[in-house]
Amino acid sequence: MFDIAPDFGALLVFIEHRYYGESKPFGNDSYKSADTLGYLTSTQALADFAILITSLKQNLSAVDAPVVVFGGSYGGMLASWFRLKYPHVAIGALASSAPILQFDDITPWSSFDDTVSQDFKSESLNCFSVIKAVWDVLDEKGSNETGLLELSKTFRTCKTVHSVSRLGLWLRAAFTTTAMVDYPTPANFMMNLPAYPVKEMCKIIDTFPAGADVIDKAFAAASLYYNYTGDQKCFEVEGGDDPHGLHGWGWQACTEMVMPMIVSNESMFPPFSFSYENNSEGCLTYYRVRPRIHWITTEYGGHNIDKVLKRFGSNIIFSNGMRDPWSRGGVLKNISSSIIALVTEKGAHHLDLRSATKDDPEWVVEQRRQEVEIMHAWIDQYNKDIAQM
Amino acid sequence: MFDIAPDFGALLVFIEHRYYGESKPFGNDSYKSADTLGYLTSTQALADFAILITSLKQNLSAVDAPVVVFGGSYGGMLASWFRLKYPHVAIGALASSAPILQFDDITPWSSFDDTVSQDFKSESLNCFSVIKAVWDVLDEKGSNETGLLELSKTFRTCKTVHSVSRLGLWLRAAFTTTAMVDYPTPANFMMNLPAYPVKEMCKIIDTFPAGADVIDKAFAAASLYYNYTGDQKCFEVEGGDDPHGLHGWGWQACTEMVMPMIVSNESMFPPFSFSYENNSEGCLTYYRVRPRIHWITTEYGGHNIDKVLKRFGSNIIFSNGMRDPWSRGGVLKNISSSIIALVTEKGAHHLDLRSATKDDPEWVVEQRRQEVEIMHAWIDQYNKDIAQM
Repeated sequence: MFDIAPDFGALLVFIEHRYYGESKPFGNDSYKSADTLGYLTSTQALADFAILITSLKQNLSAVDAPVVVFGGSYGGMLASWFRLKYPHVAIGALASSAPILQFDDITPWSSFDDTVSQDFKSESLNCFSVIKAVWDVLDEKGSNETGLLELSKTFRTCKTVHSVSRLGLWLRAAFTTTAMVDYPTPANFMMNLPAYPVKEMCKIIDTFPAGADVIDKAFAAASLYYNYTGDQKCFEVEGGDDPHGLHGWGWQACTEMVMPMIVSNESMFPPFSFSYENNSEGCLTYYRVRPRIHWITTEYGGHNIDKVLKRFGSNIIFSNGMRDPWSRGGVLKNISSSIIALVTEKGAHHLDLRSATKDDPEWVVEQRRQEVEIMHAWIDQYNKDIAQM
Repeated sequence: MFDIAPDFGALLVFIEHRYYGESKPFGNDSYKSADTLGYLTSTQALADFAILITSLKQNLSAVDAPVVVFGGSYGGMLASWFRLKYPHVAIGALASSAPILQFDDITPWSSFDDTVSQDFKSESLNCFSVIKAVWDVLDEKGSNETGLLELSKTFRTCKTVHSVSRLGLWLRAAFTTTAMVDYPTPANFMMNLPAYPVKEMCKIIDTFPAGADVIDKAFAAASLYYNYTGDQKCFEVEGGDDPHGLHGWGWQACTEMVMPMIVSNESMFPPFSFSYENNSEGCLTYYRVRPRIHWITTEYGGHNIDKVLKRFGSNIIFSNGMRDPWSRGGVLKNISSSIIALVTEKGAHHLDLRSATKDDPEWVVEQRRQEVEIMHAWIDQYNKDIAQM
């Protein structure tokens, strides 16, 4: 957005989502209970955006200025939903890596972890197999105190680990997130990482002698994610700070953003099933609310998305990179002449929204070029419409 | 709807709007304060409808059954807004007498009372002049206790009236509401009334000798509205029961449904101006909230409605009768091939939604015929789309 704004003569406005960052409606009590968290919903956030944009344009004496909304990931869902619900406020939306179809039973529940696994498998079968093998070894070793002490040493944890499952989650997060941010250039989105970090992780694994301990291999690979810069003396494996300010997401996941996920036998992760009932009980215990599992598709649609968007939507770009495990829940095919899917085989999580660098491969340069071209066409059309009134 | 449902093989579902009728979320405390009333919004009502329709179809094993939403007046606004916000839930909307443009400065603020006045003037200039003259005489007479006692007798009030302004409002309501329900056949929507009640009122006024007291004339005319059946012994002029269950509307008018109205000098009513400030102070005193004057147009649009609906809407019938003072805030011209305005010169407030009678004039029979034809086309198109999937 910073790169292209001058080309459009555009004002960039970043609207903070309520309950994230500094936007705490009830100050430090905001996350206290369902009474205060109840106002944290995507619908309310969209209404905030509508009010802010409308009022800002009024204050800037720019009521007729066209507005295009941008977002990546959850922000991309919001961007596309905003265009659907508020076509009178935004003339178009760029929804990058927006898994709007990751609800109900629209997208296979195993697609996320299957994609992570495919990413690693595509680099090397050995890499995939090592990671697939590590979980049983880990559980075995972590089943007693001596083993946990040993694992704590191996994993250089800041404190002795008391639960092997936390160690497993920590490892898993490294592989999952690295698949998401498998960017073609060095980046610092979640963590500082080199270009093509999945490939780099697999190189690390593949460099070990064949007979080496799979746990050593897995830890070395995870270290690429957690310690690429090499300045971590130890690792906070059992929780700690939330560096991404996702304090509100737990609530949203327990109310409206219910994205069922399972791990299939083909995955490199231990099989895992999902039950609405268990999920609901967990949410009841933690937040005193039960999730509304069909709310998102009721409010925004999702089933028969092709038909619905074709007839009632326009001016949305859904961009996705197929390395990104979220891509499977996105819109991957053109729906109409103005609902366009821009898909890159080698792209990752909202890569197109990242700043251009001199090392960007041609395919992402081209994806961004198309986005700019499409947005120019929206604005030209809008200006023509305005002139006729 | 009862008349045409068999033709469509349709199930009729009447969804009660939250906070009206039996739908009190907090029982008898529902209207107590802003804390409980805060959940009474049009947006929440639309979400209720979406959830109920989606869930009902699931329960009836009829997920693919097309749904058309109907509504008149505020219900008509809701129907059109529902179609805009939930095109994946309803395939079309019949929005009868829906003044969706009665917000902000889209429609002239005097249009409502100007239309009432025109209705009476169109029947007889004398009728219009008598009603226009009554207000000063009323104020003059009601300025002291003796006068109020005399007026109470003339108006056959159940209790002695202590405020002449309440008497004025009572009279005015008779003329205003009769203009709204100026149906071509006997009806009992707000009150029991004969066919063409405005014409009947004016006949009553015009039958008086020229020199008779204007107050007597006005009261006799108002009696047509309040006592057509002749069974009222006295009149509850200063309030009393709310026969239409509009308990929640005061709240909605003080929060989102802000429709500024003024009375111009050309009207037959005493001039009246509107101030957002005074309105806001009144709402603050009564409900402890201030109205959001731009909310409806922010949430649902309204400015440049032609352009916005043309591009993003489809399958909406806006029906209006031009005798209805609310018609001026409605959509009176076709916007596209599937956003259709059906306007009758002699129609009144959501006349088309009333049951057919043998005395219906040809123009309302034709209006209803067109509505059925259009809805059949929506359903045919929907079935074609479904078949292709």
